[in-house]
Amino acid sequence: MRYDNRKNDELRLINFIKNYTKNAFSSVLAEFGDTKVIVASSISETKPRWMDKNDPRGWITAEYSLLPSSTNTRNNRERNNVSGRTREIERLIGRSLRSCVDLYKIPDITITIDADVIQADGGTRCASICGGFIALNMAFNKLINNNIIKENPIIEPIAAISTGILNDNVILDLNYEEDSNCCADSNIVLTKSGKIVEFQTTAEEYPFNEDKLMLMLSYAKKGISEIINKY
Amino acid sequence: MRYDNRKNDELRLINFIKNYTKNAFSSVLAEFGDTKVIVASSISETKPRWMDKNDPRGWITAEYSLLPSSTNTRNNRERNNVSGRTREIERLIGRSLRSCVDLYKIPDITITIDADVIQADGGTRCASICGGFIALNMAFNKLINNNIIKENPIIEPIAAISTGILNDNVILDLNYEEDSNCCADSNIVLTKSGKIVEFQTTAEEYPFNEDKLMLMLSYAKKGISEIINKY
Amino acid sequence: MRYDNRKNDELRLINFIKNYTKNAFSSVLAEFGDTKVIVASSISETKPRWMDKNDPRGWITAEYSLLPSSTNTRNNRERNNVSGRTREIERLIGRSLRSCVDLYKIPDITITIDADVIQADGGTRCASICGGFIALNMAFNKLINNNIIKENPIIEPIAAISTGILNDNVILDLNYEEDSNCCADSNIVLTKSGKIVEFQTTAEEYPFNEDKLMLMLSYAKKGISEIINKY
Amino acid sequence: MRYDNRKNDELRLINFIKNYTKNAFSSVLAEFGDTKVIVASSISETKPRWMDKNDPRGWITAEYSLLPSSTNTRNNRERNNVSGRTREIERLIGRSLRSCVDLYKIPDITITIDADVIQADGGTRCASICGGFIALNMAFNKLINNNIIKENPIIEPIAAISTGILNDNVILDLNYEEDSNCCADSNIVLTKSGKIVEFQTTAEEYPFNEDKLMLMLSYAKKGISEIINKY
Amino acid sequence: MRYDNRKNDELRLINFIKNYTKNAFSSVLAEFGDTKVIVASSISETKPRWMDKNDPRGWITAEYSLLPSSTNTRNNRERNNVSGRTREIERLIGRSLRSCVDLYKIPDITITIDADVIQADGGTRCASICGGFIALNMAFNKLINNNIIKENPIIEPIAAISTGILNDNVILDLNYEEDSNCCADSNIVLTKSGKIVEFQTTAEEYPFNEDKLMLMLSYAKKGISEIINKY
Amino acid sequence: MRYDNRKNDELRLINFIKNYTKNAFSSVLAEFGDTKVIVASSISETKPRWMDKNDPRGWITAEYSLLPSSTNTRNNRERNNVSGRTREIERLIGRSLRSCVDLYKIPDITITIDADVIQADGGTRCASICGGFIALNMAFNKLINNNIIKENPIIEPIAAISTGILNDNVILDLNYEEDSNCCADSNIVLTKSGKIVEFQTTAEEYPFNEDKLMLMLSYAKKGISEIINKY
Repeated sequence: MRYDNRKNDELRLINFIKNYTKNAFSSVLAEFGDTKVIVASSISETKPRWMDKNDPRGWITAEYSLLPSSTNTRNNRERNNVSGRTREIERLIGRSLRSCVDLYKIPDITITIDADVIQADGGTRCASICGGFIALNMAFNKLINNNIIKENPIIEPIAAISTGILNDNVILDLNYEEDSNCCADSNIVLTKSGKIVEFQTTAEEYPFNEDKLMLMLSYAKKGISEIINKY
Repeated sequence: MRYDNRKNDELRLINFIKNYTKNAFSSVLAEFGDTKVIVASSISETKPRWMDKNDPRGWITAEYSLLPSSTNTRNNRERNNVSGRTREIERLIGRSLRSCVDLYKIPDITITIDADVIQADGGTRCASICGGFIALNMAFNKLINNNIIKENPIIEPIAAISTGILNDNVILDLNYEEDSNCCADSNIVLTKSGKIVEFQTTAEEYPFNEDKLMLMLSYAKKGISEIINKY
Repeated sequence: MRYDNRKNDELRLINFIKNYTKNAFSSVLAEFGDTKVIVASSISETKPRWMDKNDPRGWITAEYSLLPSSTNTRNNRERNNVSGRTREIERLIGRSLRSCVDLYKIPDITITIDADVIQADGGTRCASICGGFIALNMAFNKLINNNIIKENPIIEPIAAISTGILNDNVILDLNYEEDSNCCADSNIVLTKSGKIVEFQTTAEEYPFNEDKLMLMLSYAKKGISEIINKY
Repeated sequence: MRYDNRKNDELRLINFIKNYTKNAFSSVLAEFGDTKVIVASSISETKPRWMDKNDPRGWITAEYSLLPSSTNTRNNRERNNVSGRTREIERLIGRSLRSCVDLYKIPDITITIDADVIQADGGTRCASICGGFIALNMAFNKLINNNIIKENPIIEPIAAISTGILNDNVILDLNYEEDSNCCADSNIVLTKSGKIVEFQTTAEEYPFNEDKLMLMLSYAKKGISEIINKY
Repeated sequence: MRYDNRKNDELRLINFIKNYTKNAFSSVLAEFGDTKVIVASSISETKPRWMDKNDPRGWITAEYSLLPSSTNTRNNRERNNVSGRTREIERLIGRSLRSCVDLYKIPDITITIDADVIQADGGTRCASICGGFIALNMAFNKLINNNIIKENPIIEPIAAISTGILNDNVILDLNYEEDSNCCADSNIVLTKSGKIVEFQTTAEEYPFNEDKLMLMLSYAKKGISEIINKY
Repeated sequence: MRYDNRKNDELRLINFIKNYTKNAFSSVLAEFGDTKVIVASSISETKPRWMDKNDPRGWITAEYSLLPSSTNTRNNRERNNVSGRTREIERLIGRSLRSCVDLYKIPDITITIDADVIQADGGTRCASICGGFIALNMAFNKLINNNIIKENPIIEPIAAISTGILNDNVILDLNYEEDSNCCADSNIVLTKSGKIVEFQTTAEEYPFNEDKLMLMLSYAKKGISEIINKY
């Protein structure tokens, strides 16, 4: 039995509140149980510096931050030095979102997805990716309405979920307490049709067998299917 | 007439939602019209570095940040360089809150007030100070319940409000549109009994006469009295 | 009686030595008692980055620094991190100086005012503003002589002075010892005709009554009038 | 056929030159084809700052860098800002190496593994992990000889290898040219007995099916077995 | 003939004004022609971090800065990044001053020499070293008077002067115009008895012959002897 | 007798391995005894920022770094703050190499010389200059072959060597142990014909007499002649 009585392959209550704040180009509050993340998009017509000026594609990038008050012990602001953890999460969110978009259909547009965690209880990067997908889709529809792009560039919806191994059981959608005690965890991003976008698993405590990896993937498929139904 | 039909000395709808997030030591959402700020406290038992180890007082400090998505055009994260504006606001919030607390009654305790603006429509620093007072008061009550301090160290409640000069009229509690167009603005922090904690007024566009300054103070007294009634 | 036997509304010996250093576009040593600040102007034809290229106005900005040897205990150089206090002073100097200049009359010109304190004894920001006004006026005359601008863009002279509350008395032009012991202090910038440019007062120790604020303003008017006579 | 005529599941020439430099506590040159990485260990008796002083475990951390001259176009030194990519690689190396060591057996010891790439041709992070394992093992033997620790704390050898998808084929141990053209790649760290330490796969270009993921794992097992035979 | 009609081996007017500012532990204004540097000492009882706590010696370190207004074109403040030139000068000043002091005679004392150039016309590092020697000597006398040290730890006075090659002539004590046009320059620090402390010469434009180096040393001896007579 | 039985004016075994790494534009491993430095060139067509766009000359700059594992005690990476020592060495290498090249013959070309020390045993800056000269010469030949420049812009070969004073003897080419114990050291850069490019000598411990300086120069001439014979 899990701490909150969920079954091993059961998601927490997941909810998306669109248009949560009014000044962003699009925004959504992504709730995975007690994890709450404000995800918003903004549009810019400047290409990233590293990108060739003649590259016909647009770009999607992501930034992620925890509010100092979002965690049990105050989380210091990253004002001088952005941690490796933050950079890794931002790169994961950006890569995942780009994988489901035809960047040739948003020429000369850079979209920044900001994921700001206002309450953290495990799974913030997965909530950020799911919220990011929704904010991106809302942004594309707004860009179509504004006659800036012609068609929605999304190839196929994606979602993300965590799995882990706790007491030798594979479990789905870990909360903070489970995450702190598990011996391996993974973040999995799949398309609606079940294709693999990202599969990242780490066993700092104990290396584990291949069948556990298979069960993680199986649980993730189930969870991601349920999440996409809520979009 | 003002853009939103308010009278010159009329506040926007002001609301405080206590316990807005669950992980902080105390938290409140401060809403001044469309301005929304999550204000939270956290407690630490380490003295600030610059403070003498034998100083019998505790300390209160503040940090302030705008979410990138809180403003109409995306506000860059302050990851390398905290702007002068941010530092100035943080110093104002900290000074204001310390002015109403007997720091000898919280020995060896440092309280950090985090004000994170999730939606900005003018008056964010005033909302942060008012929310900060509430979060502080909640924190003191919790410290009393936990037998860490004996009595509430608050000397007298304070609140803050903005005033400004628009089209030669003094107005109270400016929203973003008013703030962008006014020729002078001020931030005023008063105690419940009307004493002056901070009075900061700036006339970058046109220097103004002393009677305008008097009217600003008069409007501020009215507004602050109404705000403190909502605490 | 004050530490140095001045009356409550009496300035220290104030003196301005023009052309103090020879390499700057214009320079002045501003002395307020033992406070000594080298203030200099430099001219650039590049607009600040944030300014719209089509904006027809010029710009005036300020930088402020204390020499390490200017204070009783050595003041560390700000080589990695410019303090909030410094940023706040620089913003105040810049805003004050811009308020008395018609920026449309200095198109495509950016003037930087550097205020470097070589000896600090209270009132350095006020000395910097007064010295800044003089350096600015010298620079405008030189620009007219060089046929770069046509007329002096100054609308009306300004000056700045501090006031504070010590032992329940309002006093004018605080030296370091008074500044360290006062329970409230203010920095006031007025035009020659007595209009308000900046009024910043802070009561970290004890909130104070409105009549004290009125007396501060009255003393400041007297002091500023005397300072402008020395320009 | 691959660019260099290897079979899909064939490694490049892999070689480890121990004691490559003489000043480090232990060192090895890890060569994966034209990729060459100097990996060295150093020993310190200071715990990392974040670690509880009473924690009985030691620690292993890693740093990674590319020499500017190691890549085809000069790679700028990371003197102001360490990139997200670098941080991610360092975290991966550190986690992988800690997973195969019983940290309770190296109390009060922090080992830093430095991986400096002198020539880059794909697979630098995998070469760093393999070289890191060897440098670590050499360091443990030296610590035993010096009577600092009693027994070798390694639980089971590990190794790392990359796989990817190029022209719809899964391939093993990608060189730079393959890495630049593949549509998905993965870095896999396994123990000698085939257990999973890290499995990180990314499909920025095209999401892929589960059977490809299975083939990646199968190829990695083969490659890692061959690498460990060379230790 | 030189630009200012000096002979090749002739110094500019050199002058030292002791106690130039009042808050420093000791201070002097060093004038080499139009070059003016405020040099001051401050005393601390904390050892530098890198120094062994049991090292019985004290330490002397130096910092150097140009005021933005000291140069013909405004010199940007070094707020984010201290230039290589500045670091090199600071290291030279510090080494030179330490070379003439018996550090065992100032146990547990760190002296910081601050050299702040208020007007630059060539030779600022030499003026800083000479002013630094005077400030140091004043500080030692004050420490003796305060019963903190017993005897003056200076072994032998030192001074510094520049030489260079302009139009194939070796010249002494270059001003800015000469320094900008010379094809080689050197900074030479000697003891009163003519021993070599530092000899740094650079020929970026044209390598030069040994006899020029000998003449540089000969001129420097003459100049340094004259400077030490003014101490 | 010296620690390693060399005569006072005897070099260590010096060796240059050209094309040591394959991705750089040119590269060489410079070995001075146990000191080993990878020196490489890279070519860019962007001028340095500070250089006038109309300046007809090209530019040569240098960067220097010690691998963390190159020294006996681990040398921290310079990721936040490049030390004064590093900057000083980089400036010395750059100046020395520019002194022997006619920059008008490499218009619009910037060459960066990277010197990365993989094993340090004294004399790293001299090895970097010698290796830098070789890498530069190789680069010029490659640029001629690629028809980018017409003739080799080298005016005359240069080399660098260290000398020092140990136990009152002048010695040549100090290793780490000698360098740590000497009371004065110098770095000398000469042209093939014996002209002076750089002469930097420092006597932090004991000032020394002019005849020692003469002997340093004499030994350096001998050493540099032998080194240039190995190019």
